[in-house]
Formats: sequence, C-alpha cells, structure tokens
Amino acid sequence: MRTITVFVLPGISEITPGADLVSVILDAAASTPDAALRPGDILVVTSKIVSKAEGRQVAAEDREQCITEETVRVVASKVHSGGVTRIVENKLGIVAAAAGVDNSNTPAGTVLLLPVDPDASARALCAGLRRKLGFDVGVLITDTLGRAWRDGQTDAAIGAAGVDVLLDLRGTSDAFGQEMKATLTAVADEIAGAADLVKGKTSQCPVAVLRGLPDLVHPEGYFGGDRGARALVRPPAHDLFRLGSAEAWREGYAAACRDAGLPEPLWD
Amino acid sequence: MRTITVFVLPGISEITPGADLVSVILDAAASTPDAALRPGDILVVTSKIVSKAEGRQVAAEDREQCITEETVRVVASKVHSGGVTRIVENKLGIVAAAAGVDNSNTPAGTVLLLPVDPDASARALCAGLRRKLGFDVGVLITDTLGRAWRDGQTDAAIGAAGVDVLLDLRGTSDAFGQEMKATLTAVADEIAGAADLVKGKTSQCPVAVLRGLPDLVHPEGYFGGDRGARALVRPPAHDLFRLGSAEAWREGYAAACRDAGLPEPLWD
Repeated sequence: MRTITVFVLPGISEITPGADLVSVILDAAASTPDAALRPGDILVVTSKIVSKAEGRQVAAEDREQCITEETVRVVASKVHSGGVTRIVENKLGIVAAAAGVDNSNTPAGTVLLLPVDPDASARALCAGLRRKLGFDVGVLITDTLGRAWRDGQTDAAIGAAGVDVLLDLRGTSDAFGQEMKATLTAVADEIAGAADLVKGKTSQCPVAVLRGLPDLVHPEGYFGGDRGARALVRPPAHDLFRLGSAEAWREGYAAACRDAGLPEPLWD
Repeated sequence: MRTITVFVLPGISEITPGADLVSVILDAAASTPDAALRPGDILVVTSKIVSKAEGRQVAAEDREQCITEETVRVVASKVHSGGVTRIVENKLGIVAAAAGVDNSNTPAGTVLLLPVDPDASARALCAGLRRKLGFDVGVLITDTLGRAWRDGQTDAAIGAAGVDVLLDLRGTSDAFGQEMKATLTAVADEIAGAADLVKGKTSQCPVAVLRGLPDLVHPEGYFGGDRGARALVRPPAHDLFRLGSAEAWREGYAAACRDAGLPEPLWD
C-alpha cells in the first residue's frame, strides 16, 4: 500500500545570519528518534530560514521600494483599499505578488528578500546533509505563491537539489493502452504543498520531511541531471499569461493608436 | 511532532456507470487492516471515477466538439504542432485546458466529462460514508490542472464536502506579533496534490486517504458552513487573468480601432 508520511522537524528556533542550516536540520532530526532521517527522505525547507541564514533580512523603510528593486517586469497590478498589489516577475523568473518580498515573521522595519539563488542554496544544503548523513536525501526550498484563477495560496518549490521536480509521464500508456498526452506532474510543487500542511504559517516549523518517495531522490550526477526548481518556471515563449488582461489590453490599444498615427492614450 | 500520512486505498477496480462509490470505498478500506478509516480522515477521490459512476463517459467522434460544448468562455488558445490547445472556463467556473474533457484512461472513441456538480457529488459521498462509518470524514474530488507561469500540472480540488478548502490566517499574528496580511491557504489544493503523489496517474489508484488534519474536518451544519470547492474559484471581479495576453491585446487593439472609427482588424 503506497504511503507517504510528512512530519515537521521539531525544535528549530529563530535562524540568524550565518547560521549553518545543515547543523540546524541534523540537530533537529537527532532530537527525537521519530525524526531520524532515512535514505530517500525529502527535506522541505521554508525559504524564509534560508534567506535569514544568508543575511537577506534587510532594513527597509519602504517595502514598496524593495519590491521595485526585486522586480524584473510587472505582470499585473491591482488597486485596492490597502494600496496597490503588484504581481511581478522577480529575478528568479518566478511570478509572485510583491516579488516575494516578505514582511511577515520579520522584525518591524525589516523585510526579507528571497535567497539570491535558491537552487544553489538547495544544492549546498543537499551536499552538506548527504556528506554528514552518508546517504542520499533530497532538498526543496519553498515559498508561498498565489495562483491565477484560484483563490488562496499554495506553497511551491523555488529551489531544489537531488530530487526530481517534474515527473514526465508523456509517452507512457494509460490503463487502456492509450498514450498519456499532457501529463507532466509538478511533483516538487505537490511536495511543497504537502509540507505546508504540516508546517503551517504562524508556527515555528520551517522544515518538514517527506518520506515515501525515494524514487524521486537521485545520487549526485545521475542520468537526466539535476535541473533544480528553475525547471518549474515556464519559459516566456510558452507563457500565455505574460501580462494581466488589463495590461495587455492597454498595450493592444496603444499599438492600434500608433498604427493609425494617433497619439497614444495616457493611462492613469 | 505534527505528522500527516497519505495512502492509497488498495484494490479498486474499473468503475462502471451506476457504481456505488460509498461501497467501493468502504470495501477497499476494509480489505486490509492498515487501510481502515478513522474519524477526521480526508478521502481524496479522483474525479475520473466520480464521472464514470455518474455515467459521464460519452461516445465522442470529435473530442474538440465535446470541449466546445463544455466551454463557457475561451480564456486563451495556443497553436502547436499537434493542433490547438484551448484554455477555457468550463461550466464549473474552473479554468482548465480542454475544459476538463479527458480522453486518457477511457476506452478509445469515448471521452470523460467532469461531474455535473462535483460539490454535490462530494456531499452525497461524504454523507453516505459518514452514515455507514458512524463518524465524520471529509471528501475532496480532484482533477489535474495546469497553471499559469509554472510548467507541469498539479492536482486540485474541484469538489469538497465536510472539509475546509481555504484556511484563513488573515488577521492572525506571526511570531513577531505582526498581522499576517495575505495568507489564505488553499489547503484543499495542497491536500489534492499530496494525494496525487501516492495515487499517480497511470496506476489504478483513484482514492487516497489523508490522515492527520482532523481540525479541517467538520460535522454537518458546522458554524462557517460548507462552501465546497467552488470557494476556490476566484470571482471574475478579482481575476486579473481573465484573458490570455494575446487575446486581451487583440481586444484592446480592436477597441482602439472602434474608438477611432476605423475598421476592426480580422485576426487569423
């Protein structure tokens, strides 16, 4: 009977700049026999503690200015009673509200930026854990993302090492012998979400362990390569939602004005 | 140590029209002591078997025609070597490729439509299970959905009963005493994804059980109400991605032409 178990590593306290997350995780896993790590386990680490360990907590008088600095491209924006929410593509290629700039669970007057390169952070963490443990585990680094069309946020993988992020079933056959056409499962995002169910948001539970999918965990240098969570970011050429509907509509309107030799409208 | 367990119910064979899913699920759960259901369990049921039980498998010469019939509104379309992929809003308000019309795991010449009202299907299944079991469980009905901006698909909840689909943390305080502003967790989608990790796509494992989140499971008529998975569908007024970028651009272009008294362009 196929079973997975997901549990939080107990007793991880506030992370400070320079903290050695390999030791933090191994100490937590050693604190109780139930939490001892095993080969094939996948460690699911909230990006917040990676950012804190990497010194990405910065003083910020103005969160909006920080968001602007982290933004590569504005996808959509929405005015509401509390201000403007900007959905942007950040330096990692990830489309997220507020560019992933976080001011929850940080001291007042500071914000937390995402790790500079979460895949690199995951690789370092994964290598360090494997060296100390003497067996293979996988590492995912997660953030909380909103979605188009669906309310609520889910956790998703923004960094990965030693673990498949996409499971490609295209070309395999279904139970009726028909080829599966469009099934490319974003397992890393499903694992991130599963871990969020035990970690939660307000509690001090930044690391969860998913046990039971050892086939997704690979030794270093395995065939197929370790593409990291970057592989989950849809390439621009395949992205049908590069711009919000209102933003794209305005661009089309302006283009028609240019083509007709008319002045372009000034939007508010 | 907070832990969840997710396992598949063993031995569920092909579902035929009129099948009693309450009995199918209870028989599978009774087939091995490890699978026995407990209070607070959440049953995660692939919509495919609900559709089959409800007779939604239909003969279809032309899958494209079926997609058109299930479509309320085209959101975006994309031409590729294999034809055109249409991302549409279906009758349930859900934005999905091909309107959720499925021709995998169905006999050749047939397609499987989504349940007419998956929340109603979930309510009936949940009530039937509770009556026979004598305790409260939750039911989610799931489908596989693509996402904007991210490659790969994840499972999501399209029907729900007896279980929270959104966990609202807005207004609660984080570890630093600051109010959490934007945290509304789509727990039902995270649970659907977690279940997909054990169910997979090609195997005959259409039902999984998630154990360990009994706080999300509520008795009938509880305060707050049972809003179903419909609550996960973002209302149009809050949807910034009602149209694909190209489609919105064309609408803007055409609007400018109308405003200028010029003929509207004819798109290919």
